[in-house]
Amino acid sequence: MQTLWDQRYAQRAQRMSSSVIRELLKFTAEPDVISFAGGLPAPSVFPVEEFKQAAIRVLDTDGPNALQYGTTEGYKPLREWIVKYSAEFGINININNVLITSGSQQGLDLIGKVFVNPGDRILVEAPTYLGAIQAWNAYQTEYISVDSDANGLKIDALEAALRAGPKFIYVLPNFQNPTGRTTNLERRKQLVTLAQQYGVPIIEDDPYGKLRFEGEHIPSVLTLDSKYADPDCKTPYAGNVIYLSTFSKILAPGLRLAWVIAPETVIQALVKAKQGADLNTAKIIQMTTHEVCKNGFIDKHIEIIRKVYRERRDVMLRCLEDFMPEGVQWTSPQGGLFLWVTLPDHINTTQLLKEALKEKVAFVPGEYFFPCGGGQNTMRLNFSFSRPELITEGISRLGKAIKNHI
Amino acid sequence: MQTLWDQRYAQRAQRMSSSVIRELLKFTAEPDVISFAGGLPAPSVFPVEEFKQAAIRVLDTDGPNALQYGTTEGYKPLREWIVKYSAEFGINININNVLITSGSQQGLDLIGKVFVNPGDRILVEAPTYLGAIQAWNAYQTEYISVDSDANGLKIDALEAALRAGPKFIYVLPNFQNPTGRTTNLERRKQLVTLAQQYGVPIIEDDPYGKLRFEGEHIPSVLTLDSKYADPDCKTPYAGNVIYLSTFSKILAPGLRLAWVIAPETVIQALVKAKQGADLNTAKIIQMTTHEVCKNGFIDKHIEIIRKVYRERRDVMLRCLEDFMPEGVQWTSPQGGLFLWVTLPDHINTTQLLKEALKEKVAFVPGEYFFPCGGGQNTMRLNFSFSRPELITEGISRLGKAIKNHI
Repeated sequence: MQTLWDQRYAQRAQRMSSSVIRELLKFTAEPDVISFAGGLPAPSVFPVEEFKQAAIRVLDTDGPNALQYGTTEGYKPLREWIVKYSAEFGINININNVLITSGSQQGLDLIGKVFVNPGDRILVEAPTYLGAIQAWNAYQTEYISVDSDANGLKIDALEAALRAGPKFIYVLPNFQNPTGRTTNLERRKQLVTLAQQYGVPIIEDDPYGKLRFEGEHIPSVLTLDSKYADPDCKTPYAGNVIYLSTFSKILAPGLRLAWVIAPETVIQALVKAKQGADLNTAKIIQMTTHEVCKNGFIDKHIEIIRKVYRERRDVMLRCLEDFMPEGVQWTSPQGGLFLWVTLPDHINTTQLLKEALKEKVAFVPGEYFFPCGGGQNTMRLNFSFSRPELITEGISRLGKAIKNHI
Repeated sequence: MQTLWDQRYAQRAQRMSSSVIRELLKFTAEPDVISFAGGLPAPSVFPVEEFKQAAIRVLDTDGPNALQYGTTEGYKPLREWIVKYSAEFGINININNVLITSGSQQGLDLIGKVFVNPGDRILVEAPTYLGAIQAWNAYQTEYISVDSDANGLKIDALEAALRAGPKFIYVLPNFQNPTGRTTNLERRKQLVTLAQQYGVPIIEDDPYGKLRFEGEHIPSVLTLDSKYADPDCKTPYAGNVIYLSTFSKILAPGLRLAWVIAPETVIQALVKAKQGADLNTAKIIQMTTHEVCKNGFIDKHIEIIRKVYRERRDVMLRCLEDFMPEGVQWTSPQGGLFLWVTLPDHINTTQLLKEALKEKVAFVPGEYFFPCGGGQNTMRLNFSFSRPELITEGISRLGKAIKNHI
């Protein structure tokens, strides 16, 4: 039966497709499927006991406050903690540069709500994060995509795309989702300079930056932009970059807790949008997370996560060497949760997925990460979620599926 | 300094004004101001100990799951609980009719995202809930407002407004925010019939329905619509009403936990929108709330809330009798958190607020609840938050401010 709401839905201008990844997640919940499809952190590294003890302390000492409405900007001590934490990575801000969000997904949505008019074009990496596309499609966005290589966005292609007048640039410089690639320092500097030159602001999405297994930390695009705009870096941040990060990958995604760093005027605009979107993020979660983080827990905890994920990455890389047929290539990320596999041109990974599911192994076909098309012979593999012995078995099954499919 | 983001903000088509109420909340946080402005529940009725014990049980028995990503639809046992709970109030649904949201504010936002095209007109009561206006303004909505009286929407005016072709109707039938008025059964039936006749679907926002102090529960608009569409009420709900309710007023608003009941097709559309907006609502909060509610706690708890709020309403009504000058009128709500005061025509309550703040008492001027204008001589008073002795003192101060202003 068609309700009046169905008629109204048919009239809408919005484009909203369900996430392929999340639909897959439902399917791959079957216990005998080894899934490299999701973007799930390993639950074994969630600090359950610390979170429980922190929640008890918060509710014992300040319970009614923790359960009341809060300010839209977020719990002040947590924002202050983020200011201090950011400073460790060279990000020079004050509390008015910080907004707490219900996951980085909400940050992306609020940015769409505040800045995007129907038909605006957003410049993205090819491939790019699917969740950003999902958030912005609701605002009737178009995309300009720029090819990337092992070092990040290709600068010639970037400059050509900037001439087309995008609303903003969206990049994931560290251990990118989906490729695992990192943009090198030279490319970051070029990006900041070109963005300034063409008058196009930047969104830097950095959920994985702390999960570096090896090599040196590379300054964030925001830090480089800050030096460009204000060489002494004395002022709170007032540049051209909106920076997103999250507790999802360094504590637990079930908290739905993240933050946006931006010029104060942008934060004020995002606050207004957040008022209309969900008033504020659950204060009990914010207070408990602050209680967990405030005495240096997070640095020790990140060491544990890095160790577990590094081992799993190494296992996956070894297994790819062992089980992949000739002509298959993959990235070797220095951190994060994902790597990226490129098959011979004639193999369509969406077709291959059906074969793989018969073998009880799952991945995300790469084409879904290309909003302007391409990538039919690519796939994203998650290495953070599965235990090493399952990674070995899963990559073996995947190798078999590919050989069957060829 | 104007950043590139400021330039982008200046180009936006969205209209987003900061909530007057929330800006006031900041101001009224000064300790010597008695505020009837906010919509805050009384923190003394928050079940802090129950919540703490439930959180401990959840984290002890299923911690890693509680801290992992969840499905966008929400935690299944909580959705099942909502199905059972709704049945107690004559709402005949199944789990596919239920979506968990991050507060009802998110439900309103998602409805805007899914259904509203720029320039669409939404039919609202005059006055209506400010948070809905805030949520929908981001989607460039227009409004048609219909006058209401002590029994709800005036039916003649409603029919005239329906002829103007609104996208949907938005009503708060129980103890409305801001007036405290309840739409009677006759008017609800007329609303459902007229909406069917004109082919316009309805949003029923019901945050306060369980907080009835006296009189009989009136069937929800959804229930009446259900009987209209399907007299035997045998099927899961597939009618023309989207119904919103929340844990904010029956447990605690700091949880940011609410639900939408709608036809399954609408839920599917809202799920896609929620994927892009925040992926899912914090699972730890959903699991803990389910743990609190699952064994009948909520009914006993609501009795406590009703008792506290009824006493506070009674105190406020008595004080209004005692301290208001002649020519001032007010509503006598049978439940909820708010009552509505109408002053003589020549008094502008936004002007009066300045006088009131000198006397250290605050309210929300009524005009902000009228998206099409009007209500300059009205105000909303919250009676749930302040203790009885503060209500007495505050209404005394308010009476003095009005007398000074006249």
